[in-house]
Amino acid sequence: MNENVKSRTPERNEQRRRQILDAAADCFQRRGFHAASMAEISKAAGMSVGHIYHYFANKEAIIRAMVEARAQEIVEKMDAMRRHPDLPAAMVEKADEGLDKNLERNSAALKIEILAEAARNPAIHETLCASDRVGMGKLKEILQAAAPALAGDPRIVEGRVAIMAALFDGLAIRALLQPDADRTALLAALRVAIRALLSEPAGAPNGRAPR
Amino acid sequence: MNENVKSRTPERNEQRRRQILDAAADCFQRRGFHAASMAEISKAAGMSVGHIYHYFANKEAIIRAMVEARAQEIVEKMDAMRRHPDLPAAMVEKADEGLDKNLERNSAALKIEILAEAARNPAIHETLCASDRVGMGKLKEILQAAAPALAGDPRIVEGRVAIMAALFDGLAIRALLQPDADRTALLAALRVAIRALLSEPAGAPNGRAPR
Repeated sequence: MNENVKSRTPERNEQRRRQILDAAADCFQRRGFHAASMAEISKAAGMSVGHIYHYFANKEAIIRAMVEARAQEIVEKMDAMRRHPDLPAAMVEKADEGLDKNLERNSAALKIEILAEAARNPAIHETLCASDRVGMGKLKEILQAAAPALAGDPRIVEGRVAIMAALFDGLAIRALLQPDADRTALLAALRVAIRALLSEPAGAPNGRAPR
Repeated sequence: MNENVKSRTPERNEQRRRQILDAAADCFQRRGFHAASMAEISKAAGMSVGHIYHYFANKEAIIRAMVEARAQEIVEKMDAMRRHPDLPAAMVEKADEGLDKNLERNSAALKIEILAEAARNPAIHETLCASDRVGMGKLKEILQAAAPALAGDPRIVEGRVAIMAALFDGLAIRALLQPDADRTALLAALRVAIRALLSEPAGAPNGRAPR
């Protein structure tokens, strides 16, 4: 970052970064990561290419910032949930937020585009896996607190956490393939699955594990 | 298709098509749909470009054939399952096949690559959605037969079917983000979720819905 950028206020810098990330998200979705150029991103952001390079060294750095921003959002949501007095109920109840986030078409398309790039690009793969590990770690803590009867067996916890993540990840694919799916019906079924994944190994019907 | 191709036996044609599809799958995964050229696909398949054009008009036609082949495979698996005398038990039991298919790294990467292309390309999107509708229709029939207590409410069935599909779709994303996940732990948790999605609305703990 040069003097020119350093001298700006942090708020102004953050606002500029946000503006670039939004423009890039739009370009990546419309054109794909490879086809989208820094020139197109600069045009969409209404800034010069040179200006964008003050903030991001290349397209990979832009994706990294996108992935990290999304991971931060997830961590904050999970930390807030963690403080809920009735954790199993909160996990079932708040499934609607995860559903809506994943069903949002543009966000789903961007997630898939970044995953496709990660499958070919080791640096982006590593960024995505590192962010995923942070989210999965948080989800694991929440699940252990919500279902203490499961917490004694790390393999059970690991499996439940991964399947819960798969459920939400898969909703992004449903958003692309079934854009007209009935949200209320999806939410009801999603809650059935989450409640079961919080239940004790024998499969108690309600979300609360016995203490 | 010209005379030269027509004169070949159907078996030979099918073998050639298969050879092109395998080579293209490999190219799309390594390079992405856009970056992979017909020249690269022909090189990977060990055939001339002209020869490939006898079978497929363009890259879109290759993707279409891949999507349709996968849909056909799913339909056959579901038809076989449909004939099982204890359908709920079969759905829980055979979850391992769906798990393994989706966790297979190359198949997961190709699925994500095709989805990413579909998010930008209306023709591929329509192909993918049409195949998905066929699979979802089959899954719906199976679910209605496996859990007759749910069958009376089409919205419940629709939600359960979509969430079941999301689960398996999401496993392909897990395959990329958690390549070392414990298969046994995943399978156990997957079965917990499927059993719950087959249960009656009140959330009976076992997979058999009362008649």
